[in-house]
Amino acid sequence: MRYVSFTRNGAAAYGRLDGDTVVDLSARAGAPADLKAAIAADALAGLADGARYSVADVALLPVIPNPDKILCVGLNYATHVAETGREQKAHPAIFHRWADTLIGDGAALVCPPESTRFDYEGELAVVIGKGGRRIRAEDAAAHIAGYAVFNDASVRDWQRHNIQFTPGKNFPATGAFGPALVTPDEIADIGSQRVQTRLNGELVQDQPVSDMIWDIATVIAYCSTFTALAPGDVIVTGTPGGVGDKRNPPLYMKAGDTVDVSVGIIGTLRNRVIAEA
Amino acid sequence: MRYVSFTRNGAAAYGRLDGDTVVDLSARAGAPADLKAAIAADALAGLADGARYSVADVALLPVIPNPDKILCVGLNYATHVAETGREQKAHPAIFHRWADTLIGDGAALVCPPESTRFDYEGELAVVIGKGGRRIRAEDAAAHIAGYAVFNDASVRDWQRHNIQFTPGKNFPATGAFGPALVTPDEIADIGSQRVQTRLNGELVQDQPVSDMIWDIATVIAYCSTFTALAPGDVIVTGTPGGVGDKRNPPLYMKAGDTVDVSVGIIGTLRNRVIAEA
Repeated sequence: MRYVSFTRNGAAAYGRLDGDTVVDLSARAGAPADLKAAIAADALAGLADGARYSVADVALLPVIPNPDKILCVGLNYATHVAETGREQKAHPAIFHRWADTLIGDGAALVCPPESTRFDYEGELAVVIGKGGRRIRAEDAAAHIAGYAVFNDASVRDWQRHNIQFTPGKNFPATGAFGPALVTPDEIADIGSQRVQTRLNGELVQDQPVSDMIWDIATVIAYCSTFTALAPGDVIVTGTPGGVGDKRNPPLYMKAGDTVDVSVGIIGTLRNRVIAEA
Repeated sequence: MRYVSFTRNGAAAYGRLDGDTVVDLSARAGAPADLKAAIAADALAGLADGARYSVADVALLPVIPNPDKILCVGLNYATHVAETGREQKAHPAIFHRWADTLIGDGAALVCPPESTRFDYEGELAVVIGKGGRRIRAEDAAAHIAGYAVFNDASVRDWQRHNIQFTPGKNFPATGAFGPALVTPDEIADIGSQRVQTRLNGELVQDQPVSDMIWDIATVIAYCSTFTALAPGDVIVTGTPGGVGDKRNPPLYMKAGDTVDVSVGIIGTLRNRVIAEA
């Protein structure tokens, strides 16, 4: 199944994506308040179908608009470690985003006026279904609600101000997260799905998920050791080589650009880039 | 004024601290739900006094138990920059905590079984009153609700797993935040207040707030450039030199220890250390 969060006529809702149709699951009395709550209640499969809309007639929100925690893995593809000139360590690099950085498919990534180095990072996102602490890698699959596509757009100048990434990863409207939550039963082999980023149609990143240094189960085990994971939490699993900042010459996103990230059958996330008004 | 969040007989509340008496401000009909909400509503000064308790009869919570954002400044005292062997940069290092790491005065700091390097960091915390984005340094004072004391206890082994601090700063019950929110009118000169940490009574950190590389106004201006600050958000302003991990021999916290952090007239935060059960 594929699930989306959306607004229609300004009201927030969530539903199931059937092809180009969104089936509202949120309007009946007693339905959980949002997709995160529906995941927490393990209620999605049992919610009654409501109104049907064309996906063109709704505005998609971030898959989970209000995650409690968004954990991002840095340096998780050898090609990206190499292009940054950094050393590969024995454990993952984990940084974070706040939820107010998120946008959905079709919304605009916003380049702030403080930056001249606004960069793309195509990634696979994992949404936690069942929470937990110190989840064992061999049990991790049972904690996954599904997958989505992420563009971890990075304000490189602010990311490099000092040794911690927080400033460069938390400008508003820089984390694109969509289009839909795809449940694990839809994906026979997650490793073979390719993370592909296209800037104005040009392929700039292209590697399979299986190239990750720390696989999804290992990352869930690692993160849940130091913090409790909850339903709706998001783990953004890292970007392959090919980021714009490490190209010669550099290739940054600018107002008017369109950036697509796809992760195989999980789908394609498309966002345009605007300059902050 | 001094304000605290607390529980009594298991129920969460907040109030004013008058010497050793806590005056409940949260019980009347219509009172904001918690201290963060009271700050957001700018309601604290007008709330009617309720029941009075001895501070010994309540359990203090983190000053703000549920901040949306906790921004921590790394490397903000030259003595600490020097002891880490790092380079001083032109901008602050900002990392974060999640709210589920917080404990109040009198509660136990928890050393996880994964660590042999559990370290103290005495700091001044600033609580945001009026939110905003791109707050100018010259306007920052008007955005401060008050000050408190923080022990940014650090799981050094996990902090150094890779280049980002997130894992070592987010184990549960490692961020001590108390005892009270002290409003700015109580403090004639914030810069002259000394950040002092004592481990089992031994003074291990001792510097005035004025030694900070980036002062409070500069940090508020910097952070609010990349993220919107909201009422109740917390900025933890960095630790002076003297951390245990950089001593020879190292000096870590262990079960049974008591650690006190004081910041002049803002008060003293005392926590014992336990091993995770």
